[in-house]
Amino acid sequence: MPPTPELPITYLNTHADEAIELLTQLCRQPSIAAQNNGIEAMTELTEQLLSESGFQTQRLYYTSKAPPAIYGELRGRGPYTLLLYNHYDVQPAEPLDLWQSPPFEPTIREGKFFARGAVDNKGEIAARLAAIRALRATYGELPITLRWIIEGEEEIGSPHFEEIAEKYTELLQADGCLWEGAGFTEEGHPALNLGTKGLLYVQLDVQGVGIDAHSGKAPILPSAAWRLVQALASLRTPAGQVRIPGFYAAVKAPTEAQLEALMQQENKDEQLKAAHQVEQFVDGLSGMALRERAAFAPTCNIAGLNSGYTGEGVKTVLPARAMAKIDFRLVPEQDPHDILEKLRSYLHAQGYDDINVSVLGAAGPVVTPIEDPFVQKIQRIAEAFADKPARITPLTGGSLPLLDALQRHVGLPGLSAPGNVGYWGVGHTRPMNIFDCPTWNAPFAITATCSYLLIMLEHR
Amino acid sequence: MPPTPELPITYLNTHADEAIELLTQLCRQPSIAAQNNGIEAMTELTEQLLSESGFQTQRLYYTSKAPPAIYGELRGRGPYTLLLYNHYDVQPAEPLDLWQSPPFEPTIREGKFFARGAVDNKGEIAARLAAIRALRATYGELPITLRWIIEGEEEIGSPHFEEIAEKYTELLQADGCLWEGAGFTEEGHPALNLGTKGLLYVQLDVQGVGIDAHSGKAPILPSAAWRLVQALASLRTPAGQVRIPGFYAAVKAPTEAQLEALMQQENKDEQLKAAHQVEQFVDGLSGMALRERAAFAPTCNIAGLNSGYTGEGVKTVLPARAMAKIDFRLVPEQDPHDILEKLRSYLHAQGYDDINVSVLGAAGPVVTPIEDPFVQKIQRIAEAFADKPARITPLTGGSLPLLDALQRHVGLPGLSAPGNVGYWGVGHTRPMNIFDCPTWNAPFAITATCSYLLIMLEHR
Repeated sequence: MPPTPELPITYLNTHADEAIELLTQLCRQPSIAAQNNGIEAMTELTEQLLSESGFQTQRLYYTSKAPPAIYGELRGRGPYTLLLYNHYDVQPAEPLDLWQSPPFEPTIREGKFFARGAVDNKGEIAARLAAIRALRATYGELPITLRWIIEGEEEIGSPHFEEIAEKYTELLQADGCLWEGAGFTEEGHPALNLGTKGLLYVQLDVQGVGIDAHSGKAPILPSAAWRLVQALASLRTPAGQVRIPGFYAAVKAPTEAQLEALMQQENKDEQLKAAHQVEQFVDGLSGMALRERAAFAPTCNIAGLNSGYTGEGVKTVLPARAMAKIDFRLVPEQDPHDILEKLRSYLHAQGYDDINVSVLGAAGPVVTPIEDPFVQKIQRIAEAFADKPARITPLTGGSLPLLDALQRHVGLPGLSAPGNVGYWGVGHTRPMNIFDCPTWNAPFAITATCSYLLIMLEHR
Repeated sequence: MPPTPELPITYLNTHADEAIELLTQLCRQPSIAAQNNGIEAMTELTEQLLSESGFQTQRLYYTSKAPPAIYGELRGRGPYTLLLYNHYDVQPAEPLDLWQSPPFEPTIREGKFFARGAVDNKGEIAARLAAIRALRATYGELPITLRWIIEGEEEIGSPHFEEIAEKYTELLQADGCLWEGAGFTEEGHPALNLGTKGLLYVQLDVQGVGIDAHSGKAPILPSAAWRLVQALASLRTPAGQVRIPGFYAAVKAPTEAQLEALMQQENKDEQLKAAHQVEQFVDGLSGMALRERAAFAPTCNIAGLNSGYTGEGVKTVLPARAMAKIDFRLVPEQDPHDILEKLRSYLHAQGYDDINVSVLGAAGPVVTPIEDPFVQKIQRIAEAFADKPARITPLTGGSLPLLDALQRHVGLPGLSAPGNVGYWGVGHTRPMNIFDCPTWNAPFAITATCSYLLIMLEHR
């Protein structure tokens, strides 16, 4: 029997103010994990809102020193179970002088909702809450069981999510998981994201002399900066190939279905060039070749470099220390721990034992196959709702350690889909280290979210 | 007829307080060129002290926007003319919290004189003034002519000294020049420094994307950091040889006399290792081979490196910009402008036209031959005064653009010798960017300076 969304959507349209009020409540409460600001009050508010929406809640702790994840279960009639993932923490609001209105005083300007967390990721929590309330108000008991985990450390890399996923594996079992993020393309196609790349983030540190020296001593003193530059140069060919032996060994070729999905995507080359202010992409790539490279190429990126004097003008110094931050983005089936071993072995073999490698982050790639029944189901619903074919991204360039943890300990098919309000539409004009797009098209988002929750109606 | 220093030294010993008072006056007056702090008052004080010592003074300007050099002439009986070089400006006193007493409030602790500029270079000005006063008091009219230039921008790289040397060439003519600096070795040997290396200081800047991007885009966006690393790696072999074609072409082999001078130097390997906190020097060098490398090898040093995120922890960024500061130290007959051309040609030939090279400093190497009669004269006097053989450094690792300018426009034999109180004895335990050793052994320094001025007695 096809879903009949009219009733809950009518309810939503007549209760739009309540949805906005939910979002306002969530955004008014600071919850900056990096600064431990407002976290305790936020956990209470989150638990309360889930509880008021019919969820049986509990706090999932791994250690009492870290914020708990809030967990809720809303038991339905049938056996089908859907897991929702969100996070209640937000990025720091600095630099504050870029905000037109204070980050934790939600403000509506020109029909858009501005506040830290409005998009990432409280808007999504509010949208899901509003949709669930509408469904319960119009249908009563739900046909499927909803499980919802809302963690509090996503913006600092989910340092305890792995332990929580391992400790509470039973609570997280479901037939599929709706991650955070995704939305609609500019042309109105529902966008489905099926995976994230893995990440190995390391810092390379070299110490030459014990303290900075005058560069007049350069003929006879070891140079940390030169050692680092030479070690880095040994990692990659000028053309961009990673030289670490075996780096590409585990890379799995994309499937036909994945390539077909990329083929269906709109050509955004010019928009991408404009957004990144570049004349051309690496190797002059464009179109399908560009999308394929973006989706399936593992990378070795220099995220940071530092040594010696970096201010204005001249200082004739031979620096004692040099540092690089490197992030490897990994594709299926590359394993971050295996790549780390290979990196260490390679540096050793090249004679770079003086270079200290510390690991700052490691997560495996996560990808749900296009053929997975859960993906098929969501795609069917999304296309029916939008009346347009879905646009599927098999693998996004970013990495989410929590998805890797969820995948390894629970093993659910998952994806991001519209209704996960995420990076919705307009407004992403801020520098990349400000993650929040301060806009939220509330009724549309709730409607879309509601359509996803219609998955349960298929199980009536 | 040998010099008879007894009279002026007796005078100095009975007028030690006046010498200390001179130094106190000079050090009490801030004169920080980099911060334009106290410069005007310092020029007045400097001119006044020279004038009171019998010099006919004038201010040498190239532009009214920069501090003038103070010039004085003290005409003597004979035609022999000696030029003295000093500077009245000092380095900024920051970080202030490392000072036990305020930098511009001279304080004597445990027999040592502490103040910014006490060593570099007001101690030397005070010592020379006191010595000249003693000589005039005991002998009346001097047998030779003294010319003295005291500039006000040495600590910011002498940006106008070249123009001043060109404009006032006639005033700077002499039979030889006593530069600033030098002193005695720990063993009491007079140290003579006959030259400084040249310098080419460049900054390399690369721009990839227009603004920092998320590193998830690394497969398709150009990386400024990688371009910089690869360009840098192309400049030098891992063993340290500069790869720029022709870089070594003009290098002149050291003379027998220069090598012999290095042979005479004490072995300071262990002290050097301790000072720089290193286990060993490059290529395991030691002894004479180490001294020869230090003195005569040109270098390509990385003084600074910067790109992307350099704070604690993780930021997954693909940086828009990357920057390196490079200083080349040049030996005779390398020319900084020629080396710059060769660097640009090489980067062009290697395909690095996207790397912007800006010049932050250029000065040629300056070296006075050991065989020069002026050197021979000073060495003879130094050895007679100290009753120990001199230790000659043919070429020091540092660079002084002003000496290069003086050399090219006036062309005097010159050297640093004891009495140029300079980097005297104890106390150099501060980080290298604080140039002042806050100690001054006043009577000894004045005595030594006086002995140099005895050069004039040879011309009685």
